[in-house]
Amino acid sequence: MTQPIRVTVWGENVHEHRDDSVRAIYPDGMHTTIAEGIREHLGDGVRVRTATLDQPEHGLTADVLAQTDVLTWWGHAAHEAVSDDVVARVRERVLAGMGLLVLHSAHFSKIFISLMGSTCSLGWRNDADRELVWTVAPGHPITAGVPNPIDIPEQEMYSEYFDIPAPEELVFISSFTGGEVFRSGCTFRRGNGRVFYFSPGDQEYPVYHHPHVRRVLANAVGWAAPGPAVDPPEVANRPRGWFEA
Amino acid sequence: MTQPIRVTVWGENVHEHRDDSVRAIYPDGMHTTIAEGIREHLGDGVRVRTATLDQPEHGLTADVLAQTDVLTWWGHAAHEAVSDDVVARVRERVLAGMGLLVLHSAHFSKIFISLMGSTCSLGWRNDADRELVWTVAPGHPITAGVPNPIDIPEQEMYSEYFDIPAPEELVFISSFTGGEVFRSGCTFRRGNGRVFYFSPGDQEYPVYHHPHVRRVLANAVGWAAPGPAVDPPEVANRPRGWFEA
Amino acid sequence: MTQPIRVTVWGENVHEHRDDSVRAIYPDGMHTTIAEGIREHLGDGVRVRTATLDQPEHGLTADVLAQTDVLTWWGHAAHEAVSDDVVARVRERVLAGMGLLVLHSAHFSKIFISLMGSTCSLGWRNDADRELVWTVAPGHPITAGVPNPIDIPEQEMYSEYFDIPAPEELVFISSFTGGEVFRSGCTFRRGNGRVFYFSPGDQEYPVYHHPHVRRVLANAVGWAAPGPAVDPPEVANRPRGWFEA
Amino acid sequence: MTQPIRVTVWGENVHEHRDDSVRAIYPDGMHTTIAEGIREHLGDGVRVRTATLDQPEHGLTADVLAQTDVLTWWGHAAHEAVSDDVVARVRERVLAGMGLLVLHSAHFSKIFISLMGSTCSLGWRNDADRELVWTVAPGHPITAGVPNPIDIPEQEMYSEYFDIPAPEELVFISSFTGGEVFRSGCTFRRGNGRVFYFSPGDQEYPVYHHPHVRRVLANAVGWAAPGPAVDPPEVANRPRGWFEA
Repeated sequence: MTQPIRVTVWGENVHEHRDDSVRAIYPDGMHTTIAEGIREHLGDGVRVRTATLDQPEHGLTADVLAQTDVLTWWGHAAHEAVSDDVVARVRERVLAGMGLLVLHSAHFSKIFISLMGSTCSLGWRNDADRELVWTVAPGHPITAGVPNPIDIPEQEMYSEYFDIPAPEELVFISSFTGGEVFRSGCTFRRGNGRVFYFSPGDQEYPVYHHPHVRRVLANAVGWAAPGPAVDPPEVANRPRGWFEA
Repeated sequence: MTQPIRVTVWGENVHEHRDDSVRAIYPDGMHTTIAEGIREHLGDGVRVRTATLDQPEHGLTADVLAQTDVLTWWGHAAHEAVSDDVVARVRERVLAGMGLLVLHSAHFSKIFISLMGSTCSLGWRNDADRELVWTVAPGHPITAGVPNPIDIPEQEMYSEYFDIPAPEELVFISSFTGGEVFRSGCTFRRGNGRVFYFSPGDQEYPVYHHPHVRRVLANAVGWAAPGPAVDPPEVANRPRGWFEA
Repeated sequence: MTQPIRVTVWGENVHEHRDDSVRAIYPDGMHTTIAEGIREHLGDGVRVRTATLDQPEHGLTADVLAQTDVLTWWGHAAHEAVSDDVVARVRERVLAGMGLLVLHSAHFSKIFISLMGSTCSLGWRNDADRELVWTVAPGHPITAGVPNPIDIPEQEMYSEYFDIPAPEELVFISSFTGGEVFRSGCTFRRGNGRVFYFSPGDQEYPVYHHPHVRRVLANAVGWAAPGPAVDPPEVANRPRGWFEA
Repeated sequence: MTQPIRVTVWGENVHEHRDDSVRAIYPDGMHTTIAEGIREHLGDGVRVRTATLDQPEHGLTADVLAQTDVLTWWGHAAHEAVSDDVVARVRERVLAGMGLLVLHSAHFSKIFISLMGSTCSLGWRNDADRELVWTVAPGHPITAGVPNPIDIPEQEMYSEYFDIPAPEELVFISSFTGGEVFRSGCTFRRGNGRVFYFSPGDQEYPVYHHPHVRRVLANAVGWAAPGPAVDPPEVANRPRGWFEA
């Protein structure tokens, strides 16, 4: 029998404490809602825990990371408060094979920038635009079971130019009421690890309660989970014939 | 001194003869307007001729193709009327290094389908949508000198899912009044040849008179032109050591 | 419980009848050995049948294809003998979601060329070169459980330039005794279908008996199998607001 | 008339001072030989200067970088001695559009790792392997005028797995005497900047005197040079309708 995928949902958990508007939507924190969405679809196929910025080592000790197959990351107001040591530790785990889901405003997180190498900047507007999320990779496992387009009634607008490396797979493109477009679902591989950036999801709108958004997150957990027996690549001095039987 | 790029603008030239609405916009044929737009920007850097469906061999004799560095292709009403022999000849030239610009409804042309391998189908609506063409590859030579977005007041709507192979470079994404999105500028390489698909441009709207659309076409001619000394790849039985000096 | 993947192994089955050297290696036909290799690794997870050129409709009736999730294709001496109608039928099924594994000399099959759009030519030499198959996409499911490199003692040499579109994922690169290199494991998507080209495997060498080659084939079957609920893309005229709830 | 491309060739210049074997091959420093190779092919089309680690700010002041269109980077023994401030400044310039050529052992330079996001590790052996550099992107401007393969009689061996993100364009693949393969020519875009990694070139072998290696470097300078009028992307709050004429 297959082992459940061990998921850690990381939430900055700052807006939820200081903004009434956010607490009204996410009374137990956005991370709790995201974790629920993943459990809702994957059931016994996952074991989900959460971790937040205010915990010791932001809840991401070496031990927790060693027991994490897929990490999801949401941050916005406190990117700079995340310790460089924790970022280095997360990056090392991704390169060794841990999956990473980077959500919405985490485009500006230290971990995402360190894996992408570019500025990761974009355009934005907080004005309750309708977002339509179009599938441009049908048959990709991340798109299973969601309509094309996914219709999100109110969202923060994100627009191009989104300064990322060309995605290895472009899965979703969004449009907004104002006519902007955005590459809203993008996959990347870094070392042995799989990275998925997914932009829908803002603290001011109930996006993580949206059934199709939850389905995408659950699908992405399945996609990003490492297979068995992935050895971390390493630099090595190799004598001639080193690979002979 | 650099030789001018030899461009052949191929136009189906059917709507222009049967539809008053089209003739009003393109009295000398769409191909003539497209050719003008290219000359306008590239001047002495190009030598542009046109060819149309009704000519012998559709104007694309072996001789004309041998003297063509970049071919542009617009068709809509008469894809099936294009001879398979001419398509095979064009394909062979592309694989040997000739650039190809595939325009708008030519997504369903025989030549494009034969180079892509997929159905090349899409969604559409003829209802004067505003099209916004967003650059997602800044610094790409095809985007030089155009605003982001390009604003086309009225256009036929094209929408995803656009059934093409993943583009090697995704240059433009469009949005439309109705909220649809479309990968409107895509590059591909096939053999030695460079292929650019660009969707803006419909017989019912004056899109090929739009200054920024013309600039994109001219840029794309420059991008698609083959460099010097490209030898066609070939199958070969190679004895061991065949590449020794 | 998951349904088994329905695999059809297609073999040209010509060399096996006319060449003693081939029959000595593959007494029941190459297709039989390939089918065994897939069963060996996937067991109850697959239901494998074979089909050959000499059968009515080459064994690939509409009915058989409708019940096939993944088709593997080996051909060499008789590409031209494959009926255009059957090729069109296979292509249609791939675009609708059926997986396709294209093996070795099938780089020149009608089905592969029709899906790639390029010449698919390459260099070659039949001189018992040692082939080393290097993984350049660790963590890709097709590479699970195989050493890096896979060591094939004797093989036909295939060399660049291999005239294919840039693969979406480059999984393996091979080197040969003579110093040549070849992109030997390449993935592509066409429509809803996944295509994997894998070059090791020649009628003159016992490559399909090689345990790691068999493992790659089994892995690729798992990778290429369509997920549930993939709808074929279609062209459609869409009135404004067609996607409203 | 076109302005010359302003090139800065950066060399670590450490081995040249401490190892007789290196000084014998590169008496004026590797950077001088690299600069000569570029001038040899591009003549008046370039204005080349050099900079080295031991200079103030490693010779890469804000002023020098502001006047650099393409920077080449060779380092090996002293990656850690490069100041983080200078690396940050170079990275900012690349993202704003400056081209970057990363050479050989600079796969482990701070600037390359910061742009790639992965470990950039690889296998190696210093044992005078013959390296054959195969073109897998014919028609790419970086390959103009060089034979396929380029034959380098003696070189350090570099082998897969090379832990980089999937290259946007894979231009060259090398094989070595020992049977190893390596993705030796890779392009990436980061922000507005173009990055080319090219592995041939080691301090112990006269590789930068090799005529075809020099031609590749010159070609890559031309490819990486930014076009006119590339504006750096930026994050921005955009009111609805901000792009209206």
